[in-house]
Amino acid sequence: MTHAAPLSDTGSRSPAETDRITAITALFEATRARSRALVAPLSPEDMMLQPMQDASPAKWHLAHTTWFFEEFILKPRDPDYRSPDDRFAFLFNSYYVQAGPRHARDKRGLISRPDVADVMAYRAHVEQALAAVLRAGRDDAAEIADLVELGCHHEMQHQELLVTDLLNGLSYNPLLPVYQAPDGTPAKGENHPVTYTAHAGGLVEMGFDGTAAQAGFAYDCEMPRHKTYLAPYQLADRPVSNGDWIAFMEAGGYADQTLWLMDGWACAQREGWDAPLYWWQQDGEWWSYTLRGPMPVDPAAPVVHVSYYEADAFARWSGARLPTEAEWESAAGDTPIRGNFLDAGEDDGAETLGALIPRAGGGMYGDVWEWTQSPFTPYPGFRPPEGAIGEYNGKFMVNQFVLRGGSCATPRAQMRPSYRTFFYPHQRWQMLGLRLARDAG
Amino acid sequence: MTHAAPLSDTGSRSPAETDRITAITALFEATRARSRALVAPLSPEDMMLQPMQDASPAKWHLAHTTWFFEEFILKPRDPDYRSPDDRFAFLFNSYYVQAGPRHARDKRGLISRPDVADVMAYRAHVEQALAAVLRAGRDDAAEIADLVELGCHHEMQHQELLVTDLLNGLSYNPLLPVYQAPDGTPAKGENHPVTYTAHAGGLVEMGFDGTAAQAGFAYDCEMPRHKTYLAPYQLADRPVSNGDWIAFMEAGGYADQTLWLMDGWACAQREGWDAPLYWWQQDGEWWSYTLRGPMPVDPAAPVVHVSYYEADAFARWSGARLPTEAEWESAAGDTPIRGNFLDAGEDDGAETLGALIPRAGGGMYGDVWEWTQSPFTPYPGFRPPEGAIGEYNGKFMVNQFVLRGGSCATPRAQMRPSYRTFFYPHQRWQMLGLRLARDAG
Amino acid sequence: MTHAAPLSDTGSRSPAETDRITAITALFEATRARSRALVAPLSPEDMMLQPMQDASPAKWHLAHTTWFFEEFILKPRDPDYRSPDDRFAFLFNSYYVQAGPRHARDKRGLISRPDVADVMAYRAHVEQALAAVLRAGRDDAAEIADLVELGCHHEMQHQELLVTDLLNGLSYNPLLPVYQAPDGTPAKGENHPVTYTAHAGGLVEMGFDGTAAQAGFAYDCEMPRHKTYLAPYQLADRPVSNGDWIAFMEAGGYADQTLWLMDGWACAQREGWDAPLYWWQQDGEWWSYTLRGPMPVDPAAPVVHVSYYEADAFARWSGARLPTEAEWESAAGDTPIRGNFLDAGEDDGAETLGALIPRAGGGMYGDVWEWTQSPFTPYPGFRPPEGAIGEYNGKFMVNQFVLRGGSCATPRAQMRPSYRTFFYPHQRWQMLGLRLARDAG
Amino acid sequence: MTHAAPLSDTGSRSPAETDRITAITALFEATRARSRALVAPLSPEDMMLQPMQDASPAKWHLAHTTWFFEEFILKPRDPDYRSPDDRFAFLFNSYYVQAGPRHARDKRGLISRPDVADVMAYRAHVEQALAAVLRAGRDDAAEIADLVELGCHHEMQHQELLVTDLLNGLSYNPLLPVYQAPDGTPAKGENHPVTYTAHAGGLVEMGFDGTAAQAGFAYDCEMPRHKTYLAPYQLADRPVSNGDWIAFMEAGGYADQTLWLMDGWACAQREGWDAPLYWWQQDGEWWSYTLRGPMPVDPAAPVVHVSYYEADAFARWSGARLPTEAEWESAAGDTPIRGNFLDAGEDDGAETLGALIPRAGGGMYGDVWEWTQSPFTPYPGFRPPEGAIGEYNGKFMVNQFVLRGGSCATPRAQMRPSYRTFFYPHQRWQMLGLRLARDAG
Repeated sequence: MTHAAPLSDTGSRSPAETDRITAITALFEATRARSRALVAPLSPEDMMLQPMQDASPAKWHLAHTTWFFEEFILKPRDPDYRSPDDRFAFLFNSYYVQAGPRHARDKRGLISRPDVADVMAYRAHVEQALAAVLRAGRDDAAEIADLVELGCHHEMQHQELLVTDLLNGLSYNPLLPVYQAPDGTPAKGENHPVTYTAHAGGLVEMGFDGTAAQAGFAYDCEMPRHKTYLAPYQLADRPVSNGDWIAFMEAGGYADQTLWLMDGWACAQREGWDAPLYWWQQDGEWWSYTLRGPMPVDPAAPVVHVSYYEADAFARWSGARLPTEAEWESAAGDTPIRGNFLDAGEDDGAETLGALIPRAGGGMYGDVWEWTQSPFTPYPGFRPPEGAIGEYNGKFMVNQFVLRGGSCATPRAQMRPSYRTFFYPHQRWQMLGLRLARDAG
Repeated sequence: MTHAAPLSDTGSRSPAETDRITAITALFEATRARSRALVAPLSPEDMMLQPMQDASPAKWHLAHTTWFFEEFILKPRDPDYRSPDDRFAFLFNSYYVQAGPRHARDKRGLISRPDVADVMAYRAHVEQALAAVLRAGRDDAAEIADLVELGCHHEMQHQELLVTDLLNGLSYNPLLPVYQAPDGTPAKGENHPVTYTAHAGGLVEMGFDGTAAQAGFAYDCEMPRHKTYLAPYQLADRPVSNGDWIAFMEAGGYADQTLWLMDGWACAQREGWDAPLYWWQQDGEWWSYTLRGPMPVDPAAPVVHVSYYEADAFARWSGARLPTEAEWESAAGDTPIRGNFLDAGEDDGAETLGALIPRAGGGMYGDVWEWTQSPFTPYPGFRPPEGAIGEYNGKFMVNQFVLRGGSCATPRAQMRPSYRTFFYPHQRWQMLGLRLARDAG
Repeated sequence: MTHAAPLSDTGSRSPAETDRITAITALFEATRARSRALVAPLSPEDMMLQPMQDASPAKWHLAHTTWFFEEFILKPRDPDYRSPDDRFAFLFNSYYVQAGPRHARDKRGLISRPDVADVMAYRAHVEQALAAVLRAGRDDAAEIADLVELGCHHEMQHQELLVTDLLNGLSYNPLLPVYQAPDGTPAKGENHPVTYTAHAGGLVEMGFDGTAAQAGFAYDCEMPRHKTYLAPYQLADRPVSNGDWIAFMEAGGYADQTLWLMDGWACAQREGWDAPLYWWQQDGEWWSYTLRGPMPVDPAAPVVHVSYYEADAFARWSGARLPTEAEWESAAGDTPIRGNFLDAGEDDGAETLGALIPRAGGGMYGDVWEWTQSPFTPYPGFRPPEGAIGEYNGKFMVNQFVLRGGSCATPRAQMRPSYRTFFYPHQRWQMLGLRLARDAG
Repeated sequence: MTHAAPLSDTGSRSPAETDRITAITALFEATRARSRALVAPLSPEDMMLQPMQDASPAKWHLAHTTWFFEEFILKPRDPDYRSPDDRFAFLFNSYYVQAGPRHARDKRGLISRPDVADVMAYRAHVEQALAAVLRAGRDDAAEIADLVELGCHHEMQHQELLVTDLLNGLSYNPLLPVYQAPDGTPAKGENHPVTYTAHAGGLVEMGFDGTAAQAGFAYDCEMPRHKTYLAPYQLADRPVSNGDWIAFMEAGGYADQTLWLMDGWACAQREGWDAPLYWWQQDGEWWSYTLRGPMPVDPAAPVVHVSYYEADAFARWSGARLPTEAEWESAAGDTPIRGNFLDAGEDDGAETLGALIPRAGGGMYGDVWEWTQSPFTPYPGFRPPEGAIGEYNGKFMVNQFVLRGGSCATPRAQMRPSYRTFFYPHQRWQMLGLRLARDAG
């Protein structure tokens, strides 16, 4: 396009700067390619689905993550940049507060135009422009790299939402559509008893520390790193499994009010919950609807699609409790970040998709997000960044709970020990599970 | 396909029977072709839009009208018929009462699969099978012809819904998409005063009489023809115009509670009504969103997209009232059925689309449906037909009001003097207008 | 009491005028006394109950009916009149539209002050002032008499609401309070089959005619008297009984969607209806909560507390239909107005209370209001009266159905053949029943 | 009554035991007397008010606090005890979960019977029986004393609710009733700037320690005492005042979305908040409705009736934040518990009522509850007590925020440094205010 600046312009960069630009460019390309791969199996009709206000159509995710790069990098920093349609800034912003109820968040599924082809063209247009900016050896290259990195992590968050929103949208179709064909025979493992590992607690540090081993990207809400005091505790060596959950159901867990928080009981009654979301019983066996179509429930795999209310009731029934996020983070320590993530690895240079459903045998990371008992609150000394990006996380710090560890819908590159995701206690459509904790002896 | 019966099998038919089959076959072909023409300008994304429970996606209309022929003719009468997918019967039935809230009427917009291509193939499959049945010279040809005729009128009703549901769905898009390009310069006529024609009333007959000049198709609710007594009355010679409506608005009609029915006032306050649906003001001029995109409001054209509540308040403000449906039907008499309908006529053998918006200068038919003050109730002696088709209209006979005359979204072939359509008094998304009446002297 | 004004003040009146004033004064005194008698068994706490927006506290009814005389007679016509508290005009008007949601109709139960004693003092104050006006031999005595008559009929309507609102309010108390002790052993009659009487129909007249035998009071909506044409029909000789209704229930009437109007089915499912309001089953027998406390259901007595939706479904199940209001009024003809009303008669000069529950053996009047299939619409030529009183009935003419005949909660003096009451099709808390009709042969 | 055991039976008690019984008896008598004093100005009608589900009628508070002593002491421990009506156990329990929606929590205002007189008799009956049990020198006297103490603290919580629920109920009355006449001229103080006190933080202890200086009563949720780590911080020396709040309002605080949590903004828009609850503007001056009737807003007095959402937005606007509950408790330290509480002191042996509205000049306790940024969560090692009383606080530990310090509606005897009350972030009808905090330097 319009960015003809040759690579030789970067001659004045330090090797570290060059490495940084190279790494960010690779991250950008991989992230954008993953979004394209995620929608490759989808029809234009599939990409329109918005089953509820909490979810967005795939097409919107594709456009909104593109708008982010345009709005925060290209428009303010590239005077030659031209948007394919200035009205996209309005359509694909997250919050059209000023636009009134006819264009509210729950109406994203009514935006049939621009169509998918136009959105893919918009993506390509922005990618080309941004690649040129990254190549151009500009004075503000370091700042731009930081913003691109933020944009990539933002897009990875939306990749996770894209697949879980899609699962929710497709779940209303009586035909039970298959997003990805099953990869082999469905697993049916044995449900082994859980064991607990003791942790001494004491005065520990938590949160992201940019200057230490955790160097890299983190969100504002993971900082500052700070001290917190933990009593001795024990943490289960695996998430709660489907087999455990079926035992809870068979013991009448969904019908015993004494196990439930008062708000949780009211919610469960109002919604008619008697099993995790997407489960049904057929010929005496439990099935669930997944991104790989209908699947028999594997007793050994982590339970998924349970709300905080259900997780809390389960823990009480078990004579245990949910961990705090400090306990979880302290226990995770420097465990390597391996697990069942959205991307399974590389195959001939291109990323391959992961299992897309939780599987038995994982560790602290992947498979399911794990509810903690910690409300999503600011860390001591928290300060939101300046400017529009400052709205990133702070305004959500009420009524939500922190989950840790990532899931089978989380891109691997998004994960780190300090990562905090958060959802409302009634929500179930994400890959939400739990791991039990106990006070020490 | 499977229907090999040669045309010579029809040798035993009477000429009248043969004419009837020929006419019905032509009606079937024209009706099915019109549905295809209506969606020709649409993308798969456009055909997914379901903006509210009252509306359905275009794709659903296409499939549901096809299911009707399959369910009521092919399956019970053609033992060789095979559906492309037996699950379509579930997906495209009107009322999935047994299927629970996850598959309720307001979730039709979440059925991304089958996609548009599959639905078009389903249509072709059923059309081919039905054409063969019509050709086959069967003993039950007369019954089948009646059912095909019913199916065509059913499809025409859905054609009207298809375009008005589409208008509603597209209206949420801030880009204000254009379904059909404007046909020439937008009209801006002068708003002439209304005049009234006197009618003597007395004991009159109304309703459909199959044996008389009205011979042809009619719905159950138009029968039996019966006597009713009318006091002398006067009826306006044209519908209320946009210019009239602007005068009402400027006189504070939307703010004067004494003009409104109590339920109407509550509805108008709750919904924030201060103009017809799709209207907005820009630089001192009124605009409206139409199937031909944003258009300046033509003072001379009939007002459209007003609810019964608004129509009733307008009539009260005017010192007039809405007519009863008996008054309307008696006044219409045997006026020829001409007007601004969904189809404009024929051009080189193929139907052409009409104006798609109301225009000045029309008569009793076309442009806008006209609210009457008559609730939709059974005529004396009404009996619903036997069987599943018996549910056709009777179960709607509460809380709705009758409108007469057809609109610019109504296929011409659907109209007749006795035709009763009906909507709830709060609804506005159809092509709904009004014509005033007065008591005599 | 305080009525010392000598009759000689009225010396210039004609005997007819004097008779009219005497009659109206008696009506006023009897009406006001009945209101006092109705609340005599109630505590101040009982008089605060407002169980839903459709209902009002007894205290409010007492005050509002008093405000009517103050607002429309005393304030405009008696310059010496002083209200005990000018703010009552605001508190006890029907519609505080201008006052915003904090003082809306559904908040009447939150007006603890003025207390019952203050309201009773307000009543006495207005009664005294009005009696003086009636005695005074004024030039506008005829107009005042008309307004007092209207006020008395208005108060009688509120007497009916007072007892049915009270029944609804008390029904939420698990102690099942008794308003009036049962008058003898509860009836348990045999349920005899219904028989139908044939009516010829034809061109008939209906509505109130002030100049004929019906001379007396009527509401605007009962006029003008007008012609209407009826096909021959048959009308049942008694209302549908509890025994009939139990048969409907046992036949699965509440579970068979094909019997119901679509809106009715949705309402019944949403509300969980499976029997008339206030019914429950105990040891295999049906009981209902009544103004005389819990009572076993009498199979021979008319069913009560059923909605239009239920009445319509019952009629369809019976192979019959509801009558139109014209059919009902024509059949009633000049039947004497006798029956089970709110007041049973006179005992030592003072009125006595009636049964307060429907009983077997009645005629066209009393026991239960009878749903007709006629929506509440204006009669041909209807014109609301001028002024504030003009709002009386016209603004309710949408979405409601007419009932005829009065009930065991209706004051006898309120009834006449042309009387139209009206309720929404989902409402059940009034004394609502039904009588079947059929098309002739 | 039935408890004839002579005082000499207590001969075997230790002096400490005797002192304990004497103290508890005095607490019981004072608590019960305070409830009677609180309702002395109320009519039976006033005691029926239930303006919303969160609030209960005064009559219900009187009965429910009595039921507590009956249910947990008299019935299980006094075989001779007879309830005046066994059905009261059902009517006056907190949660009629099994009773279905017709008797749900929001229907307490529909229980007109038993009336106030019956409820007062119920109170006297239980008081007499309990006094006899306390006098009787029983073996389980210590356990009973603990339960009576719990019952008194329970009743004190309900006293606070009684007056704030009453204020809310009366606020719907356009007459703006006065619960207690103003005590002197309304204050109009000057609003002095706030100053901050520095606190070093570090590893501190918080929560109730029964064995230490805090010996006495505490709820389960205040335990166990535990360590927590605090960064250095600063705490304002006074609550936010009305003057401060008016500055926030005048600066457009209610209209600036960037100041608000996302859920808070949505709530404020939905509810139309633009000032604290009960405020209105009149002739350019702010007024508020209080338990002493309409009062001009005192700029120097603490602001009250603001939600967490408003408090959080105000703090952000101020460049400060809300304190955590650990910061608050640590700062309070062993400050004497003095302040503007529900009871002002003793006058001739009987308690007198306090100001009933917040006043300028107070310290950490009294006037207004102070929102903290701490969600209401279990302390590390929290275990709910066994049995029905175990439901006391644990089931509320979600979606609520902790407030500290007590208010002008809190009985003085209820307060201690570890006391945690909690409300939902949208609630405003309690005496809710705030005090600012800041991170140190």
